[in-house]
Amino acid sequence: MRIIHNLDEMTETARGWLAGGSVGFVPTMGYLHEGHLSLIRAAQQECEISIAGIFVNPLQFERSEDLARYPHDPERDLQLLSTAGVDVVFIPRAEDIYPSDFSTFVVPSAPLTGRPKGVNAQVYIRGVATVMTKLFQLVRPDLAYFGQKDAHQVAVVRRLVRDLNIDIGLRILPTVRESDGLAMSSRNHLLLPAERQAANILYRALMAGKALIDGGERRSSVIENAMRDMVATELLASLDYTAVCHPDTLSELQEVMPRTLLTIGVRIGATYLVDNFVWLGDRHWQM
Amino acid sequence: MRIIHNLDEMTETARGWLAGGSVGFVPTMGYLHEGHLSLIRAAQQECEISIAGIFVNPLQFERSEDLARYPHDPERDLQLLSTAGVDVVFIPRAEDIYPSDFSTFVVPSAPLTGRPKGVNAQVYIRGVATVMTKLFQLVRPDLAYFGQKDAHQVAVVRRLVRDLNIDIGLRILPTVRESDGLAMSSRNHLLLPAERQAANILYRALMAGKALIDGGERRSSVIENAMRDMVATELLASLDYTAVCHPDTLSELQEVMPRTLLTIGVRIGATYLVDNFVWLGDRHWQM
Repeated sequence: MRIIHNLDEMTETARGWLAGGSVGFVPTMGYLHEGHLSLIRAAQQECEISIAGIFVNPLQFERSEDLARYPHDPERDLQLLSTAGVDVVFIPRAEDIYPSDFSTFVVPSAPLTGRPKGVNAQVYIRGVATVMTKLFQLVRPDLAYFGQKDAHQVAVVRRLVRDLNIDIGLRILPTVRESDGLAMSSRNHLLLPAERQAANILYRALMAGKALIDGGERRSSVIENAMRDMVATELLASLDYTAVCHPDTLSELQEVMPRTLLTIGVRIGATYLVDNFVWLGDRHWQM
Repeated sequence: MRIIHNLDEMTETARGWLAGGSVGFVPTMGYLHEGHLSLIRAAQQECEISIAGIFVNPLQFERSEDLARYPHDPERDLQLLSTAGVDVVFIPRAEDIYPSDFSTFVVPSAPLTGRPKGVNAQVYIRGVATVMTKLFQLVRPDLAYFGQKDAHQVAVVRRLVRDLNIDIGLRILPTVRESDGLAMSSRNHLLLPAERQAANILYRALMAGKALIDGGERRSSVIENAMRDMVATELLASLDYTAVCHPDTLSELQEVMPRTLLTIGVRIGATYLVDNFVWLGDRHWQM
């Protein structure tokens, strides 16, 4: 397994790939879990070369405390990637990705930035759009793999690739969950034991919304209330938002229709978690 | 000579080039003149495949009158390009480059947007950055060619390619001038005969600044005043700005130092013209 830190080396390596086989890229912020590994397996199955990225993107955190708290363990990550049989790991340094005179941002505008609820959605969206544009230029993959768990990121990257005509195929894979329904996330490791028990409240709230939709309810306000009421039953949880919205534009919907995103953001103690289900219509769900 | 209008066809074609020879790209807004042709000859000399782009980018015009007035004559352009022996011409449609739900912009920030003078500099800079990012993704050239005449564009593209890690080499070629010093520009064809005579006032003003610098003057204010005074001698000219600035950041300089951009924007009747010289130090000029 080859490890690349230097941007010029990454650019040179990607240039060498252009004439060769297909390249599958899994960008991550490290502290890998089974969700990431499912993306890597998909990249390995579909592409001749697999490359994982590890970069905790400072631009998508508004609060420096959140950035400082983000878990990291590069040695463990490299061990997992090596065991998985990844070909290349790209671990750029923040000061190379954002040198002191860095000043060009990729900025999604309305509807993506107009409607979505969620902590620091504007900062997050600009940060994701900018770093993904850069990583795509550096790695030049044929396919890039993302988890459905980060629904905002998925919407931003889909829009970005289309709007900027980036010639990359996207693969969005299902959220991987713990046995109690909690979506796998690097942030789960920040939870204290009691918080960990409480954390599946996001899943339970989404299930409450799902039950209503499966029962025929279509009014977003009723569904959001049910999710909110469920979160209120958990003392350690503090709701940030629930939304019933379009998965591509993140615009809120008055009524549920086929392809609707139920999304939720909750603070459990000091740890911010998100989760979502997508209703595809007719009792079909991506969850 | 192959003509491509369709974006998917361009993407497919560019993908085919990746394994092959080097690609030189000359993006233009059409209504070609000798300045453009000098870029095309350079691309042909340096690269195995030459491609010219023709796209009048609505995003970089703030005023729809200016966009509507921009000269165009696609048949003449294609004739010139065919005679020049260009391999491919890419002429996308505006509604394909900016579909109705287009919403991701590439936005340079300070210093590029903080300081530069010039009509609608903010709109222009965002428009250039966004369209060039898109064209670079669609065409995927090894080298891209620009004229020094559009100094703002050059600064934006240089910054953009570096900040977004786009693996493209830039070639900036000298401004091509008419015999009276007027910089070649598609907009020159909009000038009435008397205006055409007056239009070399930009060149004369830059020469006045140059004479001072060659004589040892270093104070930007003195140099700008001399340029302004020269423009005031021409009745048909209305000064928009003069600036003494850094060619990369466009930040204004109090004192001239090696690598300083003298730039000027003037309205001659209804037509807006720009021009610039770069002082490289020690009586060396790019003009």
